[in-house]
Amino acid sequence: MTRFLESIQSPVDLRKIPLDQLPQLAREIREIIMTTVSFNGGHLASNLGTVEICLALNIVFNFPTDRLLWDVGHQCYPHKLLTGRYKNFSSLRRKGGVCGFPDPSESPYDLFSVGHAGTAISSAVGMACADQLLKKNTKVVALVGDASIVNGLAFEGLNNAGTLNRQMLVILNDNSMSISEPQGAFANYLEHLRVTTTYEEVKKRVQHLLEQIPYGQRISDVGYHIKQGIKNTLAPGHIFEDLGLKYFGPIDGHDIPALLEKLNELKDLNAPAVLHIKTIKGKGYEWACDDPTTFHSPKPFKIEGSNVVIQNGSGRSWTSAFADAMINLAKRNDKICGITAAMPDGTGLIKLEKTFPDRYIDTGICESHAAVMAAGMTKAGLRPIVAIYSTFLQRAFDQIFQEVCLQGLPVVFCTDRAGLVGDDGAVHHGFCDLAFLKSQPGMVLLAPSDEKELIRSLDLATSLDQPSVIRYPRDNVPPQPLGEDSPWGILKTGGISRPLREGIGGGDATLIAYGACAWQALEAAKLLENEGLSVAVIDARFCKPLDGQMLERVFARNHPILTVEDHSIINGFGSAVIEHAQEKRYDARLVTRLGLPDRFIKHASRDEQLKEVGLDPTGIARSVRAAIAESRTIPTVPAPVKRAVPQMR
Amino acid sequence: MTRFLESIQSPVDLRKIPLDQLPQLAREIREIIMTTVSFNGGHLASNLGTVEICLALNIVFNFPTDRLLWDVGHQCYPHKLLTGRYKNFSSLRRKGGVCGFPDPSESPYDLFSVGHAGTAISSAVGMACADQLLKKNTKVVALVGDASIVNGLAFEGLNNAGTLNRQMLVILNDNSMSISEPQGAFANYLEHLRVTTTYEEVKKRVQHLLEQIPYGQRISDVGYHIKQGIKNTLAPGHIFEDLGLKYFGPIDGHDIPALLEKLNELKDLNAPAVLHIKTIKGKGYEWACDDPTTFHSPKPFKIEGSNVVIQNGSGRSWTSAFADAMINLAKRNDKICGITAAMPDGTGLIKLEKTFPDRYIDTGICESHAAVMAAGMTKAGLRPIVAIYSTFLQRAFDQIFQEVCLQGLPVVFCTDRAGLVGDDGAVHHGFCDLAFLKSQPGMVLLAPSDEKELIRSLDLATSLDQPSVIRYPRDNVPPQPLGEDSPWGILKTGGISRPLREGIGGGDATLIAYGACAWQALEAAKLLENEGLSVAVIDARFCKPLDGQMLERVFARNHPILTVEDHSIINGFGSAVIEHAQEKRYDARLVTRLGLPDRFIKHASRDEQLKEVGLDPTGIARSVRAAIAESRTIPTVPAPVKRAVPQMR
Repeated sequence: MTRFLESIQSPVDLRKIPLDQLPQLAREIREIIMTTVSFNGGHLASNLGTVEICLALNIVFNFPTDRLLWDVGHQCYPHKLLTGRYKNFSSLRRKGGVCGFPDPSESPYDLFSVGHAGTAISSAVGMACADQLLKKNTKVVALVGDASIVNGLAFEGLNNAGTLNRQMLVILNDNSMSISEPQGAFANYLEHLRVTTTYEEVKKRVQHLLEQIPYGQRISDVGYHIKQGIKNTLAPGHIFEDLGLKYFGPIDGHDIPALLEKLNELKDLNAPAVLHIKTIKGKGYEWACDDPTTFHSPKPFKIEGSNVVIQNGSGRSWTSAFADAMINLAKRNDKICGITAAMPDGTGLIKLEKTFPDRYIDTGICESHAAVMAAGMTKAGLRPIVAIYSTFLQRAFDQIFQEVCLQGLPVVFCTDRAGLVGDDGAVHHGFCDLAFLKSQPGMVLLAPSDEKELIRSLDLATSLDQPSVIRYPRDNVPPQPLGEDSPWGILKTGGISRPLREGIGGGDATLIAYGACAWQALEAAKLLENEGLSVAVIDARFCKPLDGQMLERVFARNHPILTVEDHSIINGFGSAVIEHAQEKRYDARLVTRLGLPDRFIKHASRDEQLKEVGLDPTGIARSVRAAIAESRTIPTVPAPVKRAVPQMR
Repeated sequence: MTRFLESIQSPVDLRKIPLDQLPQLAREIREIIMTTVSFNGGHLASNLGTVEICLALNIVFNFPTDRLLWDVGHQCYPHKLLTGRYKNFSSLRRKGGVCGFPDPSESPYDLFSVGHAGTAISSAVGMACADQLLKKNTKVVALVGDASIVNGLAFEGLNNAGTLNRQMLVILNDNSMSISEPQGAFANYLEHLRVTTTYEEVKKRVQHLLEQIPYGQRISDVGYHIKQGIKNTLAPGHIFEDLGLKYFGPIDGHDIPALLEKLNELKDLNAPAVLHIKTIKGKGYEWACDDPTTFHSPKPFKIEGSNVVIQNGSGRSWTSAFADAMINLAKRNDKICGITAAMPDGTGLIKLEKTFPDRYIDTGICESHAAVMAAGMTKAGLRPIVAIYSTFLQRAFDQIFQEVCLQGLPVVFCTDRAGLVGDDGAVHHGFCDLAFLKSQPGMVLLAPSDEKELIRSLDLATSLDQPSVIRYPRDNVPPQPLGEDSPWGILKTGGISRPLREGIGGGDATLIAYGACAWQALEAAKLLENEGLSVAVIDARFCKPLDGQMLERVFARNHPILTVEDHSIINGFGSAVIEHAQEKRYDARLVTRLGLPDRFIKHASRDEQLKEVGLDPTGIARSVRAAIAESRTIPTVPAPVKRAVPQMR
């Protein structure tokens, strides 16, 4: 089964394999990827599509001396298998195991930890420029999917790449799929290129025609136009050509001899170029080709006869809860629209598409555009809800500042995957949304703790006259509401929080949780109750504006206060609490901030990650115990001395 | 002189003016813009270029029912003069006066407050989509410069615009200039379009040629290609056409009858389209045309005979100090490069271009690309310094996260215009860089307080093995160093701060300033000294990592501590100080955070703005007095009660 793969420690070994045996190696790679993902979950269909190009690239180029830059990078599994990661591959995406994205800490064959789209051409341009300045003759290759290339940053990269006076190769890996269907005019353009015959083929058949065109006539400019037109047409990638990159293809991205031939030819081309390859997402497994969206990043699955049965997630996800809440809201309010940036499945907005196709927009991987477009729609009287993962919302920060907050437009952002995301790891955690959003004047920051609360938070957000962001994690909603219904609203004293659990006689400590981690806080309180500690739990609901009345009450209890958030402890919810305390002259020494530490958290299951950072019930309980113990012993700094001040003049 | 302009309260009045008198009106507009900018400073050359298109747009379209979206927007002065802002125009960019950018609070003819590039097409798409859903037949126009259109977001907007099934017009205002020379391959492409004859002209002369091409032959695909090629060539804007937008032009953007004719024709075109107009930056004044970079946004100036004398700024700017520091550093270290995103003048990097052209890169208005490119260059062994205004750094946030911090690459960002920027107003303040940067693991945040310190901070940053950001304002460096030389470095206890002034006997209060506002803090301390108050002043230098030793000493003084920063008080330097205090169990009630309030600050002079927010010496002194007074009276909450805790089980 793994006749070849076992023997490959690096591309040096790969080059020893006879060319006619490479299809067998390709089968082995597909087999191990399929098997591993069936156990661990992970990105499947896209990796089945990049097997041959990874083989060809690693044969022709001399990585890591030459440089290979991945865009998004979730399609790099074949590359990993060819560059020393085969032995550990069964640990894919598991704690301590092989990362599901390129990871330089794992191998020098991975240059950048990536996971966000559109960046590879720019980093390739940077490396190419540096190599040129340093007089190195390395080759630089960027591998970019057709979904990523529509991202504005990729265009910025191409625009600069086209001015280079040296080798740089962009491989456009075109499977005519984003995670789901591709969007926008450029996708149509690529579709046009895909059905176009290649330069070389057309050239043979066009000779006769060319001769009949009267180049010789005294019509210099018109003749020039026609000549250019034919040139552009024969080499149909004229958008790329116009940007200064030579365009080659499209060629079959699964035809190893063709790939080797073309890469060998382009390797020494001393100019920026694009090689357009056509690949099939899911190649090798019919069921994956037939449904590449489902098999983009499936949970573990089993093959039972001709059926592929994907393990059902137990419980109900925040994503599903949001999707249903969104539909219900849209039914009641015809101004509501939904916008996703290429994540109809991941955000749940696919349900909206099915129910209200006119009120559903997929911008492709264009988060900045999605935010500005939403601002435009809001200005024109609609109430768009932009559903973007927390980590990708970072890409729209400047637009949230300028087009949303500065205008005071009530755009609603729903940020799924806020907090630790589990096996996707460091590239995808939503760890800093509050940090950048909280500094924006007029912004309302909300987080629900259960499904009912999610519905209420959406109702409130869509009724506000100012921008808002609702955050929830990659997790399940609690099976039951965490507490009693209580009103949602924003008073002069701040957004109304919800008490989930009272402490006996004031309690020994108070946990103030922001968002979904209220569940962990409640569980921690239950653990502590068994130890005779009575801990109050508050569901903060709002990070901005904070509930000032609640904080006044809690600080008056004069006992340990622990803030709990699935967000960096820097500039997050806990920081807002101590900022408020400082302003109100409450004693912030009572506070302990629980949240994500100031380092990047590696891939593992979400539960393992929560445990690692102490945000699981046991970890929170431990922190509460420590805070209570400390409150007995802390040497308190005396309050400001009452001293005579010279009289003001 | 203002025969016509005085009579125009709105475009309704404009339409009453005979067509043959419009050139006179154009002259009046240029005259008043030139005169006003000569007094107030402001954007000049670009506004001289948009006079005729503003006239034509306001005649043909029915704004504000129809919608006009500005990109960047600093070229909207003629539009302001035609839509009710003539009377107040002498107050341009002054406190309480007409804003230098579009401003909806000023007029319904301005839809969005803008100042950052690349957003207009996206907001236009949003409004067009909303109008379509709401079954409104408004017209939507976006006016975009050739410098903005290379921004990735503009491309994302075009990519979506090309899929619309309704009217939307993008006017490409092409003066073949960014603020300085345009960059990238797309600029070359536009240059090609500019020298191309228009579709209509070529069409007449090509008839004969077309007839000779053997469409009739049995060569369907090849014939198709040639036909397409000729079509693309005759309508030369095929990048736009390929993206689904009809392309018209290029036409002379100063020819009023031609503009009116074309706009009237395109107004009812039920499809997305681009009208390419050629304009001259500085049109109407030879000296402005000759040097459009100098006259892009000049300080007040005087016309003396045939000379135009621009008022010299008094003092030495942070920008100049940075430029010189950069050159000196580059002389000593051949790995140092400089990257700007279309701001060679504004950032001072133009000096580097002149000294080390090979080590200078202008990416055009592509901040995201600049950040990623810098990461690639760093990975390949160089030490690039990316000079970007604080407000524009927001556009590279996600790339600073992924390509810089997650990789731990020691890219150095120098953020000019950090803090209040004066007359450019709310669209340009650098008010939240610390908020988003501080949450990034491994990031070092530095801010110098005088020129010597700037040099030292650059030396340190470029010697670190981790990413860093140096911030300084749109202001002058202090004429003298603020204090003694002292070592720069990062110890285990944090970045080393610098004491600027000791308090007598510990002092009555301590001011801890971050960056350039150390000067204001020192001046405040001098004012207070006259009143018999002894105030210590510390130059924090580092926001991350904070100087823990210094903070321990200062909190031990047990007197009022005031943090001073030219940044939002939310998630800024002061917040870092109280986060630290909370962790160390220092009493944060001692602290008062001075900084920018949680609202947008309008245009005015920087001094007026500093005064408005209490960051001038008088304002800081007032806050110190209040804090000292409060320290005598504040009812302190008792420190955490020492209470019995149930024994841990």
